[in-house]
Amino acid sequence: MKARVTVTLKNGVLDPQGKAIEGALKSLGVDGIAGVRQGKVFDIELETADKVQAETSLKAACEKLLANTVIENYRVELI
Amino acid sequence: MKARVTVTLKNGVLDPQGKAIEGALKSLGVDGIAGVRQGKVFDIELETADKVQAETSLKAACEKLLANTVIENYRVELI
Repeated sequence: MKARVTVTLKNGVLDPQGKAIEGALKSLGVDGIAGVRQGKVFDIELETADKVQAETSLKAACEKLLANTVIENYRVELI
Repeated sequence: MKARVTVTLKNGVLDPQGKAIEGALKSLGVDGIAGVRQGKVFDIELETADKVQAETSLKAACEKLLANTVIENYRVELI
């Protein structure tokens, strides 16, 4: 079973990397960009075919390693 | 208008960062993970409300800066 975990910064948390990308796009002549925020995506292959078990593993993975839940949100999608 | 750009490594391209995450999850006791590949996600705010114009800007942004098209795929979703 496959899953995709998306980790994004919470609203209100400063994102200097996103700001830098926004500036770089402007200087490269890409118009119409009002804001950029960067996040991370993890494509995870799971051994189990059981949805509940997969979700439990993924939640543990996010809480323990993939996301810093103080400043980041995460979303798990099973594919 | 908002958009999400997802950049992932192409199949066959080595992902040492993903391998490291996989190892870390194993040593943290998260079971059932068979593989991890890491990518990037960009949440972009656009000034225009025109879909075609938005897609053109986003394609330019991806080709010029956000993705290395030699080793990475990108996907643009308008939200």
